Amino acid sequence: MAETIKISLDAMGGDRGAEVVIPGAALALNRRPDTHFLIYGNEATVLPLLDRYPALKAASTVHHCDIAVAMDAKPSQALRQGRWRSSMWRSLEAVKSGEADVAVSAGNTGALMAMSKFCLRTMANIERPAIAAIWPTLRGESIVLDVGATIGADAQQLIDFSILGGAMARALFGIERPTVGLLNIGVEEVKGLEEVRTAGKLLREAGLPSLDYAGFVEGDDLGKGTVDVVVTEGFAGNIALKTAEGTAKQIGSYLRSSMNRTWLARLGYLLAKSAFDRLREKMDPRKANGGVFLGLNGIVIKSHGGTDAEGFAAAVELAYGMTRNNLLNKIAQDLVHYHRGRFASVHGGTEGVK
Amino acid sequence: MAETIKISLDAMGGDRGAEVVIPGAALALNRRPDTHFLIYGNEATVLPLLDRYPALKAASTVHHCDIAVAMDAKPSQALRQGRWRSSMWRSLEAVKSGEADVAVSAGNTGALMAMSKFCLRTMANIERPAIAAIWPTLRGESIVLDVGATIGADAQQLIDFSILGGAMARALFGIERPTVGLLNIGVEEVKGLEEVRTAGKLLREAGLPSLDYAGFVEGDDLGKGTVDVVVTEGFAGNIALKTAEGTAKQIGSYLRSSMNRTWLARLGYLLAKSAFDRLREKMDPRKANGGVFLGLNGIVIKSHGGTDAEGFAAAVELAYGMTRNNLLNKIAQDLVHYHRGRFASVHGGTEGVK
Repeated sequence: MAETIKISLDAMGGDRGAEVVIPGAALALNRRPDTHFLIYGNEATVLPLLDRYPALKAASTVHHCDIAVAMDAKPSQALRQGRWRSSMWRSLEAVKSGEADVAVSAGNTGALMAMSKFCLRTMANIERPAIAAIWPTLRGESIVLDVGATIGADAQQLIDFSILGGAMARALFGIERPTVGLLNIGVEEVKGLEEVRTAGKLLREAGLPSLDYAGFVEGDDLGKGTVDVVVTEGFAGNIALKTAEGTAKQIGSYLRSSMNRTWLARLGYLLAKSAFDRLREKMDPRKANGGVFLGLNGIVIKSHGGTDAEGFAAAVELAYGMTRNNLLNKIAQDLVHYHRGRFASVHGGTEGVK
Repeated sequence: MAETIKISLDAMGGDRGAEVVIPGAALALNRRPDTHFLIYGNEATVLPLLDRYPALKAASTVHHCDIAVAMDAKPSQALRQGRWRSSMWRSLEAVKSGEADVAVSAGNTGALMAMSKFCLRTMANIERPAIAAIWPTLRGESIVLDVGATIGADAQQLIDFSILGGAMARALFGIERPTVGLLNIGVEEVKGLEEVRTAGKLLREAGLPSLDYAGFVEGDDLGKGTVDVVVTEGFAGNIALKTAEGTAKQIGSYLRSSMNRTWLARLGYLLAKSAFDRLREKMDPRKANGGVFLGLNGIVIKSHGGTDAEGFAAAVELAYGMTRNNLLNKIAQDLVHYHRGRFASVHGGTEGVK
């Protein structure tokens, strides 16, 4: 039998804290019974909620924390007030110490990233972490990173993100050699940012076994699912993500108001209700809930702060899946492979000069 | 009676060239009869088409050009081969000489921007031009710039874009003091790019009478229509634009396949057809067709290359409207005002020191 997956939870994170985290964890446990939870939070809040879910209670250990990081705390403030003692910090520390395999928090993104960097540190050979989002596409799902961990990225960082995203695609989709595209404007080699062009050239030359570099992609390729992994720096990635979310809401709103305009349209809506439900399910942001922090010595999953129990459960299941499929090992192997390749080519070059 | 608006057309631009441009111009003339067209293109192609539209023929002068800029020509190549002689160049030159008030081309964006810069030059005090897109929103329409003229922008360029976009909002929407937001990630003052933060600070301090600076906006504010004008640099702007287009297509595709799955859904679709037609019309990319080149000594409208006659007509009507509402004068006035304000504050500061 496979080992139990140990997931640490920041029970105080998110707009509604433990009220969403505990029922969400209970839902996830139903679907993934081989999970153990380390729950960090205020016992006065957590324990009464936990009493309602006996199965979860049996599969959990609760660790009391006095401090909760506020949803509007600035990263520096969160670090100052919440280090060592907050539920967010301690859920990360459990990953660092190996007590947990992965941490999940619906707390504020800036604070969680700052604490994750401070607590877990970036992996060897990785300068900056990235947040990877799962993007629903016409072909299924893609991975898009970075969606907001850091602004700007040089060519080497874009290559790092490609390796990180490629490993995650193997863990998430089970594809042996996922396709990776660099987000750019215009697909011709001459266009776009200097660092994107350089990264593209280097990725093409590297010929990595872990990923299939597919060239530049544009904004409209995101929804098409042209590649398995789309790589960009955090400013453009965050704007793309929020623009897509906004556009989906906008069209949903148009659709509702159109369907409400005449009685014939309302009747048509009722008849086609199953189709609309299917559409709604397809576009349900809770299903793809969970940003994955990559590039750190440990996996951290950021759930949307405003999600409900179903959405939080999706983030927990993502954490489960990333651990079960050895994401961290995959990344480490790919990095070793890439850097060994670089060393070999440099070494080869030196030999040629001799 | 108001003066006739003189519009120069690059008849050879776009995926289908004159076959779309001529019928499109004829449609626009129907709706804006006080227009005169200067048509630049190969007479052998243009004249037979023009014979089918007597009203347009009567309102046009045709200027033969041997050369058409290819849709896949690189900007440098287009300049080398097409300067002075191509239909694209000559339609721009007509604006420069004052024979035309505004130029419209469905030719390739890179070439059109390169030629526009070379032929018309940037306005005094404007370092780089921008392409402004009209963005459909839940509140109506917004203007978004830059969507791809140049990559990156410093604080001063973002301020220039704000002034250009503000003037366009006054010309397009007739709003006296349009709201302007800077696209950023996170709305707190502490977040985001240094140059965006600086531009925001300066815009707030400037207190311009021509625009109402509303702070930072995020990707999802685009579809909401939170502000009249959204300002960003060309890389993020282009990615946002194409991501939104891609998302709209993706949802349209989901909707179609959902509605086709069961006979009940198909029946519902038929009953609600008027509602779906309304939705389709709302999302029709042809309606908002036309990128406006701003910051040059003349207005150039870029039509989508793949549009049809109806879409090209929308671009022509946009050209008409921008001229009729004195866009160029509005920009010039706002720039004078802004730079006079800067001078006055510097001068005031000096006096204080004396």
